[in-house]
Amino acid sequence: MWVEQEIRQQPEVADRLIREGWEESRQIVNAVRRFQPALAVLAARGSSDNAARYGQYLLGAFAGLPAALATPSLITFYRRPPRMDHAWVIGISQSGRSPDIVEVIREARHQGGWTLAITNDPASPLASAAHAVLPLRAGEERAVAATKTYTAQLIALALLVTAWTEDAAMREDLLRLPEAIAQALDTEEAAQEAAAFWQRVVHGVVIGRGFNYATAFEVALKLKELAYIVAEPYSSADFLHGPIALVEPGFPVFLIAPGSTFRSEMESLARLLREREAHLTLCSEDHGLLAMADVRLPLPPVPEWLSPMVAVIPGQWFAVSLARWKGLDPDRPRGLQKVTQTR
Amino acid sequence: MWVEQEIRQQPEVADRLIREGWEESRQIVNAVRRFQPALAVLAARGSSDNAARYGQYLLGAFAGLPAALATPSLITFYRRPPRMDHAWVIGISQSGRSPDIVEVIREARHQGGWTLAITNDPASPLASAAHAVLPLRAGEERAVAATKTYTAQLIALALLVTAWTEDAAMREDLLRLPEAIAQALDTEEAAQEAAAFWQRVVHGVVIGRGFNYATAFEVALKLKELAYIVAEPYSSADFLHGPIALVEPGFPVFLIAPGSTFRSEMESLARLLREREAHLTLCSEDHGLLAMADVRLPLPPVPEWLSPMVAVIPGQWFAVSLARWKGLDPDRPRGLQKVTQTR
Repeated sequence: MWVEQEIRQQPEVADRLIREGWEESRQIVNAVRRFQPALAVLAARGSSDNAARYGQYLLGAFAGLPAALATPSLITFYRRPPRMDHAWVIGISQSGRSPDIVEVIREARHQGGWTLAITNDPASPLASAAHAVLPLRAGEERAVAATKTYTAQLIALALLVTAWTEDAAMREDLLRLPEAIAQALDTEEAAQEAAAFWQRVVHGVVIGRGFNYATAFEVALKLKELAYIVAEPYSSADFLHGPIALVEPGFPVFLIAPGSTFRSEMESLARLLREREAHLTLCSEDHGLLAMADVRLPLPPVPEWLSPMVAVIPGQWFAVSLARWKGLDPDRPRGLQKVTQTR
Repeated sequence: MWVEQEIRQQPEVADRLIREGWEESRQIVNAVRRFQPALAVLAARGSSDNAARYGQYLLGAFAGLPAALATPSLITFYRRPPRMDHAWVIGISQSGRSPDIVEVIREARHQGGWTLAITNDPASPLASAAHAVLPLRAGEERAVAATKTYTAQLIALALLVTAWTEDAAMREDLLRLPEAIAQALDTEEAAQEAAAFWQRVVHGVVIGRGFNYATAFEVALKLKELAYIVAEPYSSADFLHGPIALVEPGFPVFLIAPGSTFRSEMESLARLLREREAHLTLCSEDHGLLAMADVRLPLPPVPEWLSPMVAVIPGQWFAVSLARWKGLDPDRPRGLQKVTQTR
């Protein structure tokens, strides 16, 4: 199965990109610094848009840049592009062939913004349109559902902010990441157990926060694409503003809770969910938190800013197992093609 | 029932705000122009965050400003605030008492950004924290689920961009809006019919695009809060990047399709959904599009940039009717309070 092979390739893909992409990242960041952007704009669709969401937090936290997710239709449909002449505009696309993302980069460059393509195909239209390219080096992705290119996109963004900060400790942390990703692959069996419960489930929610808000989006997308589960992503903050009303006994919640920043908030949320008798699947490296869950997906400990590359892995296994439990072919999601053409 | 009364108050609330908020909006915009922002940042939670999403499109289209939805946790949890010294930072909150939104405004002002509060309570902490306030004048909102304050927030944003463009035709369009909102209230009966089908439904998707991407989020939130339906919002572009895999015969889709910009894209999507035998509920002023739907929610024609204030109304009726069909009390959603305290 392609998707399974590609999930297993992630430590190797991560290692290659972290080593080979470092010099390029430094050169890109040097050029961006000279440009002195007032903000970053991230343009992407699908899984790449989930990577962009991680980028929004990373660029804010480590480069001090306010970062917006692009609204391509202002350019492609309304023909009213916002000003991007002071912006560092980053297009993210595995194939580099999403027409609206290419259009955002062209418009930004035309206006005088500084443009970067993060793509698996350095010969793609997206790469040609931008000032610079950071290739993912992930090898061909044959599965329809993105896995190794998603983690590679996260790593590309992490390389950029590491180059921005010039922080040697961050660089060291990054170099150790492939090993942690390899350890996270061991969650396959626990994820199969989680899937055994979820096979009776038709919908649920996936919750993460901060750096892992992106992970919640990506795991929810994998559940939809591969297992046809109506899974909606939330930050724990937004979930309490309305959607908490959904929770009734047995309601399935997938909680992504690595790191210390939100430790006490996640514990309160887990307690509240238990009181309402939700069914709780939880990803964390914290044994105290894990003990509160019905199904436990233990993560290797990594610095919180890098936890999204590790925390998504049990989610990928989970979606694949669930597809199998349901007798579906994870390599042939109904109605999906590898490259989606949106204008 | 509070929520029903407040839905009916919307033409009156809109009319008052459009008339009384005009001079304030002009003064605010004059001050913002002098400040020369490089970008806008919108900070909000829940329904207000859906209004912020409309603001993101409006500010891009009519003020040429790239606009980011804020990531409050970078400030409140990670203590790594992005630079907002060149930003027009707008906090949107009905109560003005969401601690993390207040914190974003305080931090932005401290950095030298220009801050605005859009709130129903001009004496709230949010209002006190900002350089200026645009009060919603919606009267007390007693229902837990926001309706009249949501449309008022949209109107506040529309007033600001109208003042920015100094376009007399836009001002005229705005002045005619309350009449269109009143007409949209007539969808109550059609929405009850739609609800009769959806009462058997446990989950579904709500799709909108461009200015009405916000409407999709708001209708989905109302369905969750009031009728406990797992309803996920999408842009039609993102829906094709993965989640289309969910659609099987009878799968319920609520399509928000006013205006001409996305007319042909919405028609293609409606055709695709019909081929896959989805159950299609559709809001539009276009009879050709409406004819493709199982349940039709006809809208009065308004300029597309103002259509979100009109298109949300049948969605509000729909969620309330659905709650009633399901024997739920729309004024007492389980587990919700009027003011949610998030850090």
